[in-house]
Amino acid sequence: MAETYQIAVIRVVTLENEEKLQLHGKLINEYFPNLITTSYCIPDQYEGVHDDLTYERATKKIVDLAKSIQHKYDGIVISCAGDPGVEILRKELEIPVVGAGHSVASFSLNFGERIGVLGITAEAPQLVASTLGDKLIKAVKPEGVNTTNDLLTEVGRAAVVQTAGELQQEGVDAILLACTGMSTIGIAKFLQEKLNIPVIDPVYSEALVINGLCKYRSAL
Amino acid sequence: MAETYQIAVIRVVTLENEEKLQLHGKLINEYFPNLITTSYCIPDQYEGVHDDLTYERATKKIVDLAKSIQHKYDGIVISCAGDPGVEILRKELEIPVVGAGHSVASFSLNFGERIGVLGITAEAPQLVASTLGDKLIKAVKPEGVNTTNDLLTEVGRAAVVQTAGELQQEGVDAILLACTGMSTIGIAKFLQEKLNIPVIDPVYSEALVINGLCKYRSAL
Repeated sequence: MAETYQIAVIRVVTLENEEKLQLHGKLINEYFPNLITTSYCIPDQYEGVHDDLTYERATKKIVDLAKSIQHKYDGIVISCAGDPGVEILRKELEIPVVGAGHSVASFSLNFGERIGVLGITAEAPQLVASTLGDKLIKAVKPEGVNTTNDLLTEVGRAAVVQTAGELQQEGVDAILLACTGMSTIGIAKFLQEKLNIPVIDPVYSEALVINGLCKYRSAL
Repeated sequence: MAETYQIAVIRVVTLENEEKLQLHGKLINEYFPNLITTSYCIPDQYEGVHDDLTYERATKKIVDLAKSIQHKYDGIVISCAGDPGVEILRKELEIPVVGAGHSVASFSLNFGERIGVLGITAEAPQLVASTLGDKLIKAVKPEGVNTTNDLLTEVGRAAVVQTAGELQQEGVDAILLACTGMSTIGIAKFLQEKLNIPVIDPVYSEALVINGLCKYRSAL
């Protein structure tokens, strides 16, 4: 039996519905049953993180929250492909802290050297772009999709599918989903089967990496 | 209980001693108990892979071996940081194939953006270098260490420790061990405790990535 780790999952969108709040934590636990998750979200940010201003606001809330709960956990996941607060927390906390962005970018590099990025911003999130470096072939966002909530509509989902097809035409080896809202709508499997290329899910990736980091501390 | 996967571990040095042959597979299974390993090695290559000629020779042997055994496994690990044969096999086989090089490079990117590479060749292995891109700050090899066997001597080990200390002086965020012989001698933990920065082990990383890829196929 693999060692279990207590993981705090911080959602960067305000969620008052308990089921929605728990969703990423539940996925993480399904992927890696040894990760026992507790979910949190930041207050007063109903549209999540989708531009510089919302990023900056979220960062301060995330850092404060993570610091206040760290003593209870073996690791913290910031469940956002923008990785708000991750670099600050990595330096300041004693436990592993991961974000979806660097996690999905680093994992995607095992699928090839030409990575396409599909997110909700015109440019790839900063840590996704810097982690991929010159393996980032193109970053795209679906038309009409500007926040994580837009992904929840039929129109939003259709736009994601169309944009993924366009990205495939660029000859990428894999498509990196650069918004954890894509995990919320469970679209990676659908796209992968439709396009027949690897489509890398950010919540799966953050689960893989926090498990890898927690285990590494105890394994070595 | 996590799903179990049957993993072939291909050693790229000829090993007639059963215990030595099994060592990486045993480590992989200790890190991830759901990975059930069977070890193989290539014939007539007692000094492993350490230059262009030995790389080329090994690649053909590895590709032939992997093709002949693939039907028995869920995934294949080429336990060498040079990743010989990995790119060919990725395209030709239906199951996941990973090498230690891209695995350790991709995992290291979760530790920071300034990575130092410590291997047995003057330059970083090709896939390690390309995966790291501009995050590769410096690659070094210990003086007098030219093959994986040189790591097994006291002098070789001392040279690794000294070179790791010099690499740390370059201000790297983490040290990537770019030879699986470093895993054989179990030096990551020792270096990490001595230098107090993350030291990333290649056999741990290949275990993490093959588990991540096998699980991804079944999870999605």
